[in-house]
Amino acid sequence: MRPTGRLHLGHYLGVIKNWLKLQEEHQCKFFIADWHALTNKYKETDSLKENIRQMIIDWLSCGIDPEKATLFIQSGVKEHAELSLLFSMITPKSWLELNPSYKDLKFNLYYQYLRDFLAGKQIKIIQTPPPQPYEEALEKSTGKQKSKIFEDYLREAFHKAFYNQKGIDFKGFKDVLIKFGIQKKIAQEVVKNLEEGDVGKDIDTVGFLAYPVLQAADILIYKADTVPVGEDQLPHIELTREIARRFNNLYEPVFPEPQALLTEEAKLPGIDGRKMSKSYNNAIYLSDDEETVNSKVLQMKTDPQRVRKTDPGNPEVCIVFDYHTIFTDSQTVSEINAKCRNAEIGCVECKKILAESLNNFLQPIRERRKEIEADIHRYEKIFEEGTEKARAVASETMSEVRKAMKLWQF
Amino acid sequence: MRPTGRLHLGHYLGVIKNWLKLQEEHQCKFFIADWHALTNKYKETDSLKENIRQMIIDWLSCGIDPEKATLFIQSGVKEHAELSLLFSMITPKSWLELNPSYKDLKFNLYYQYLRDFLAGKQIKIIQTPPPQPYEEALEKSTGKQKSKIFEDYLREAFHKAFYNQKGIDFKGFKDVLIKFGIQKKIAQEVVKNLEEGDVGKDIDTVGFLAYPVLQAADILIYKADTVPVGEDQLPHIELTREIARRFNNLYEPVFPEPQALLTEEAKLPGIDGRKMSKSYNNAIYLSDDEETVNSKVLQMKTDPQRVRKTDPGNPEVCIVFDYHTIFTDSQTVSEINAKCRNAEIGCVECKKILAESLNNFLQPIRERRKEIEADIHRYEKIFEEGTEKARAVASETMSEVRKAMKLWQF
Repeated sequence: MRPTGRLHLGHYLGVIKNWLKLQEEHQCKFFIADWHALTNKYKETDSLKENIRQMIIDWLSCGIDPEKATLFIQSGVKEHAELSLLFSMITPKSWLELNPSYKDLKFNLYYQYLRDFLAGKQIKIIQTPPPQPYEEALEKSTGKQKSKIFEDYLREAFHKAFYNQKGIDFKGFKDVLIKFGIQKKIAQEVVKNLEEGDVGKDIDTVGFLAYPVLQAADILIYKADTVPVGEDQLPHIELTREIARRFNNLYEPVFPEPQALLTEEAKLPGIDGRKMSKSYNNAIYLSDDEETVNSKVLQMKTDPQRVRKTDPGNPEVCIVFDYHTIFTDSQTVSEINAKCRNAEIGCVECKKILAESLNNFLQPIRERRKEIEADIHRYEKIFEEGTEKARAVASETMSEVRKAMKLWQF
Repeated sequence: MRPTGRLHLGHYLGVIKNWLKLQEEHQCKFFIADWHALTNKYKETDSLKENIRQMIIDWLSCGIDPEKATLFIQSGVKEHAELSLLFSMITPKSWLELNPSYKDLKFNLYYQYLRDFLAGKQIKIIQTPPPQPYEEALEKSTGKQKSKIFEDYLREAFHKAFYNQKGIDFKGFKDVLIKFGIQKKIAQEVVKNLEEGDVGKDIDTVGFLAYPVLQAADILIYKADTVPVGEDQLPHIELTREIARRFNNLYEPVFPEPQALLTEEAKLPGIDGRKMSKSYNNAIYLSDDEETVNSKVLQMKTDPQRVRKTDPGNPEVCIVFDYHTIFTDSQTVSEINAKCRNAEIGCVECKKILAESLNNFLQPIRERRKEIEADIHRYEKIFEEGTEKARAVASETMSEVRKAMKLWQF
């Protein structure tokens, strides 16, 4: 896991919960991928150490257990870098350039720049688009409406330009922006920046291209047979298998071909209904205190059709209810479901119950967090010892690798 | 130096001679770049260890001195891989793709494939082309002449297609081949292979693209201020300086900006008059015995205008004379010069004198070689101890690097 900041409920349900189960059943290695954090955040290392520290606290306070799994920090096992270098020698560049997640990451970074640029020019971006296909909606809209960008449309248009068969169609995208009502001058500026500016150059580093090779080394150096990942990571696991096969064919059969253990994406939305994410500022963190949780729950969007308390509500379109199904006991959930539909319970009361459920869930985590924070060096040391343990395994694999490749044996 | 095989006289004059001087004046680090050998030879590691061993013998027998310089093997200093990984995070991919030596290396590998392919089809490649520009020569030539490829022309035509502004113009190159008299079927096959086959894919690895980053790490990890290189390596030293500057600007000033110490390219040709090279099979090796040297000198090309012994010769176009100026004492050289021009000395006699000069030069190297071979493990150990010494320095730099980048301190 990349140390990019404190963990939220989405991380818990999507990853940590799964790890808690896995550590009981398998011999697990969980590591803080600090080198990977550099692939796109190499300019922002000021917070790296603190992010690692927060990740240590988050993991341990949730019950990730150093007695059951090896917990470590990637940059402490230099052997990952060595194996990554050796893998880079046998990995065709095209395997990476064609990797969909490389293109997707690049798309996301470019798109983020585009969004920030427009926001900087005071160009409004409306998040919920009208339901027609965007060309049609654009035709129908007046000048004033046009000058407001519909986010999903913008994204779709940029996506089209980006995934053009012949490389990125910046010219076509400039025309789309002008159609959207953006001033020609501004459209030209942003497209020029995307085309030749520092955006692309700074992001598009060798490390960014090659990080799936490092990831393959991360996995294969422990001869892992299983890697718990989200769907977006499947191409990387496939690449890892391809590298393992190529190595085994070229030299000697050293590596297994690891399988992905697909973890279902957590469906828990953020408090505004969008995907829970730090960048949307809509997340509930594992480290949030009671008051913060109460306040965030009160801000949650509910059924927009239910204006007055006497209106019957629809739990199916209410994110508070989504949360209840996960964090509140099933009997109470049934009651809330019925009462909401009959307007027998108000949103404020319903939210209070949810806040209580969440705080009940978070309470033991918070207590454990306090203990860890009070003695943080001891827990950092646990990760450093874990790093030593991991290194012992990694270094054994590297001996095999050097032997198979017929490199010098020191 | 990449361990690609035994060293020849060209290596001695171009590199080793310079190192012998440098080790007296500077604190030097000379290393066997075995990881670099993998960038294009990753499929042929069977001979890697023996090549390293031969390099150890070659260096030491020439007088490269472990008491004066640190001698080591790259793959024993994992820190090079770690720093290379960190540098890869801050190095824009475009810096490498635009690097002329990346394009040149790729060109050479493609061209080599093309040449081998045509040779395999029994298509004759004539080495000395007629003096006109090739389009003209081609127009004037008949069908029979056309079917013989003029090497320099072929190279020039492929060069044109390769350095096309819009990427490689394979179609245009196919047309050129057909113009050259190559059967359409064969031209199509080779171009197809170049375009989509394994040639490009196997060569064009991540490691091949990124090796100048590894080279920057090799240099900067020792905070070297000077790097002795040939002219073709200048772009790499410039890249090393750029990476150093970028690192220093992004984090803290850790690295110097090393300067290239340009070593003049040795003008010594191979015994056939072309550049001395293992692949041309025209080299005299430092490890050649007396008999081999005698026989190779006898094969040397002399002034082609001098047919009979009674014809006066021209030492300016004679490679035997080139060798004399380097390996024979200056008085004898003057005498030979005068006698040749006056037909007072025959080529065989002149060659005997050269063979003696060469054997005199090689004799002490041969004796030292024998001593080393008899006790090879002791000398391998010297390199392994040198590797430890290098690692101590490298590991200190890495502490600084991790601190500057604000990575976790173990």
